[in-house]
Amino acid sequence: MPVVEIFGPTIQGEGIDQGRPCNFIRFGGCDFKCEWCDTPFAVLPHLVRQAKRMDTHEIVDAVVRVPGSAEWVILTGGNPCLHQLSPLITRLHTYSLKASVETQGTRWKSWLLQADRVCVSPKGPSSGMKFNEEEFSDFMARLQSEVNWRANDNWRFLKVVVFDQADYEFAQQIHQWYHNVPFFLSAGNDAGSTVGDPNRVDERSLGAVRTDLLNKALWLTNRVMVDPLMKDAIVQTQQHVMLWGNERGR
Amino acid sequence: MPVVEIFGPTIQGEGIDQGRPCNFIRFGGCDFKCEWCDTPFAVLPHLVRQAKRMDTHEIVDAVVRVPGSAEWVILTGGNPCLHQLSPLITRLHTYSLKASVETQGTRWKSWLLQADRVCVSPKGPSSGMKFNEEEFSDFMARLQSEVNWRANDNWRFLKVVVFDQADYEFAQQIHQWYHNVPFFLSAGNDAGSTVGDPNRVDERSLGAVRTDLLNKALWLTNRVMVDPLMKDAIVQTQQHVMLWGNERGR
Repeated sequence: MPVVEIFGPTIQGEGIDQGRPCNFIRFGGCDFKCEWCDTPFAVLPHLVRQAKRMDTHEIVDAVVRVPGSAEWVILTGGNPCLHQLSPLITRLHTYSLKASVETQGTRWKSWLLQADRVCVSPKGPSSGMKFNEEEFSDFMARLQSEVNWRANDNWRFLKVVVFDQADYEFAQQIHQWYHNVPFFLSAGNDAGSTVGDPNRVDERSLGAVRTDLLNKALWLTNRVMVDPLMKDAIVQTQQHVMLWGNERGR
Repeated sequence: MPVVEIFGPTIQGEGIDQGRPCNFIRFGGCDFKCEWCDTPFAVLPHLVRQAKRMDTHEIVDAVVRVPGSAEWVILTGGNPCLHQLSPLITRLHTYSLKASVETQGTRWKSWLLQADRVCVSPKGPSSGMKFNEEEFSDFMARLQSEVNWRANDNWRFLKVVVFDQADYEFAQQIHQWYHNVPFFLSAGNDAGSTVGDPNRVDERSLGAVRTDLLNKALWLTNRVMVDPLMKDAIVQTQQHVMLWGNERGR
């Protein structure tokens, strides 16, 4: 499997485990190409081709070698659902590690049901990607079929990144459709891009990055806190970006 | 009951509901006087005496009049457990509102079991308060007795504010004692003080407040993410302070 990076120790920056110690495995390859993608190096084919090929054992060995003591391992991308990760999750479990998967909800994989957490993050209009309602509802139906026998229904949640009003309305729609699924809104981060130079480094100062993201979060919070449709939603800013800016490997 | 402020719409800044729309009811009066208290106006007796006296109906009327549509109402202080809040919670429930209580875990009240969420926040050495282990363990035992029949054990959680290494070691101890209770660490905020002028306004710029708090959060995160004792902990910064600084009524 193409592995773009394995890093830690760090904390999960978004979603239900925001602030929790974890390590990341980032797989190369994506069926999307979002305009504001913050990891174009895991998406653009000519860059993904440069990724290291690793098998399950090599990946787990690398994760276990990361200093620190995080229990959680985040399987992200790109879209990790382009790969067969069942053996990886099985092996992580033998090391008493927990697997959290981040995906946009386009490609269903039955191994998702082995995960300890699934973050489904459909992409709104600002991504430039077309939202396929049928594909997404199929994905969610398969995921939801498992909920009944899970002890904790936080094992899966939805996250929508919001840059503008159109994204916000998209988020409202998603949340209404799946009102029983924990729902997170993340203020859009202008960190990367699949447009132009994908290796572009964010040259803004840490202060400027924080201020920009917090201004977007304020805009979002001001809407959410008076919106009857959003009374169950949670607004976040990416915590890793608050702490370290758009530094790679954080 | 002495009510110092009722405000909203806003979001919960800390703990398990961080980022969630809510309104706040802040009760006056506290059995503690933490050196870094960020709401001395709800603590110092000569200021609490100036608080408006309100009964249950008046309080709920005021909460319902707040614009917005938050479902959650945070009962905070001071220490709300100095008061008899059973009728208030009952009445909030008749309006389909949820009650979340924030307390330091010193004074047990059986009405806590009516709440939809309880945040227990014992104070570390930097507060200048003496930690009474017996009192706290009694409080937690009573709270824990309810867990078995609750659908979701997130209904109560622990939060420790950390300013320095001594606080951090205090937090480690608390987390070890109650390792099954969701555990949050909050980077210390130098906003207020019960020492000197309690009406002191934080005159630092918003940027300076954010930078200071994020520097403390970095210090804390760097410890947590490599600490085997903290692998289940969650590190946070106060989200309302990130967004608005130390503005009162946020």
